[in-house]
Amino acid sequence: MFRARVHSQFVSLDGFSAGDHVTFDKPIGDAQALFGWFDGRGIEGIGDVEAPVTVDRALFAMWGQGVGAEIMGRKKFGPQHGPWPDDGWRGWWGEEPPFKTPCFVLTHHPHEPLRFPNGTSFEFIDAEPTQVLERAQEAAKGLDVRIGGGPSTIRQFLAADLIEFMHVAIVPVTLGHGTRLWEGIGGVEDRFTIETIGSSSGLTHQLWNRKDRVGSA
Amino acid sequence: MFRARVHSQFVSLDGFSAGDHVTFDKPIGDAQALFGWFDGRGIEGIGDVEAPVTVDRALFAMWGQGVGAEIMGRKKFGPQHGPWPDDGWRGWWGEEPPFKTPCFVLTHHPHEPLRFPNGTSFEFIDAEPTQVLERAQEAAKGLDVRIGGGPSTIRQFLAADLIEFMHVAIVPVTLGHGTRLWEGIGGVEDRFTIETIGSSSGLTHQLWNRKDRVGSA
Repeated sequence: MFRARVHSQFVSLDGFSAGDHVTFDKPIGDAQALFGWFDGRGIEGIGDVEAPVTVDRALFAMWGQGVGAEIMGRKKFGPQHGPWPDDGWRGWWGEEPPFKTPCFVLTHHPHEPLRFPNGTSFEFIDAEPTQVLERAQEAAKGLDVRIGGGPSTIRQFLAADLIEFMHVAIVPVTLGHGTRLWEGIGGVEDRFTIETIGSSSGLTHQLWNRKDRVGSA
Repeated sequence: MFRARVHSQFVSLDGFSAGDHVTFDKPIGDAQALFGWFDGRGIEGIGDVEAPVTVDRALFAMWGQGVGAEIMGRKKFGPQHGPWPDDGWRGWWGEEPPFKTPCFVLTHHPHEPLRFPNGTSFEFIDAEPTQVLERAQEAAKGLDVRIGGGPSTIRQFLAADLIEFMHVAIVPVTLGHGTRLWEGIGGVEDRFTIETIGSSSGLTHQLWNRKDRVGSA
C-alpha cells in the first residue's frame, strides 16, 4: 500500500495556513501566531524529546513515521521568485534539514539538485501533480510520500484527488490575511472521513482519511 | 534524558486491566472484551498500516517510538506458575516477538535467557524494580524503557515512583472480575499531569506525564 500524506497542517480560525510577506528573515511571513503551537521536536516519534508527551506531541510525531519522500512548493524551500538566482541558497534549514529523505520541489525554473549528509536531497521539478507523485513514490522505496505544503501545494494535490491522509491542526488564532488553505476546493471534505478532537492546548486536531481507499475503519 | 514509559494500557470501566484464567490458549484470560479495540498493527509508528490513521492508531503507535528495552511480569511471558518447567516455551509470540529489543521478565525462578533473530531477547531476573530498571536502562542504550505490564507490574513500578509516562486507554466495557490496575496505589494520580481525550471509537485516552520530571509543559 502507498499513501500520500499531509501532516501538521496548521490552519487559523479564519482559514489561513501561511503568512504573507515571506522573506529570507521570515520563512513563515506574518503567520508566526500559527506556528508557535509546536516546537518542532519529535517529528519522527515521541522518543528523545525532553518534554511531556501530550496529545499534540503524539499527533505531530506522525510527521516522519513511514515517510520516504516529500513534495513541497518552492516557497517552502525559499523566498525567491522567478528564475533561481545564483545565491548559494540551500533552503531554510542549514546543513541538517529535518526531512532525511529525497524531497521534490515544485518549480517552473531549473535548479541543480542539492544533497545533504543526513539523507536529505532536493530535486527541482516542473511537472503535474500526478507525475511528481509518481517520481516521489519511486524515490520513497515502498514508504509513504508526504505532501509537505505550503497550502497552495496541498490544494493542488487535493484538487487532483491524490491525497489519502491529512492531519490538520486548527489553531485558535485569527490572522486576517495570508494564504488560504481551503480556497477553491469546496466540497473536498466529502471524499474523506474526518475525526476531530480537541487537546488541552486549545488546538483542534482533525485526521482526514480518504474514504474507500485506505483499508476500512 | 531517560524515561520509563507505559503504553497502550487498557482498563475497563470497572478498573480491570487483565483477565482471570490465563492459560496457554488464552493469553489474556477472560479479558478479550478489553483488547478487541486495537488490532496491534503499527505499534512502532503509523507507517505501513493498511487502515485509516485514526486518533486511536496515532496514540497506540507511540508504543515502540524511542524504546530500547522492556520490563514485563512473568504472566505476560507465559501462563506457568512456580519454577519454570522444561517445556520449550518461548513466549506467546512465536519466532517474531513484537518487541525487537532486550526484554526483562520479572520472576523469582531461574530461567535461561532467550534470543530471537529480530532483536528480541528475554532475560529472566529476580530483583527489585529499581535494580531491574537500572539493568533495562543500560540495555536500552540511551533510549527509553517500556514498562510492559501486566497490571501488577505497572502497579509495582508506580508504587516505587519509577514511571515518567503512561498512555492509559479506558475501554467502555465492564469485566466484573480480573486484575485491577489501580488497587493499592490510591493518590498516585497526584504525581502526574493527566490529559484526557475521547476518540470516535468510544475509547478514552489519558496521557499521564510525571510532574516536575519530564521537562515542562
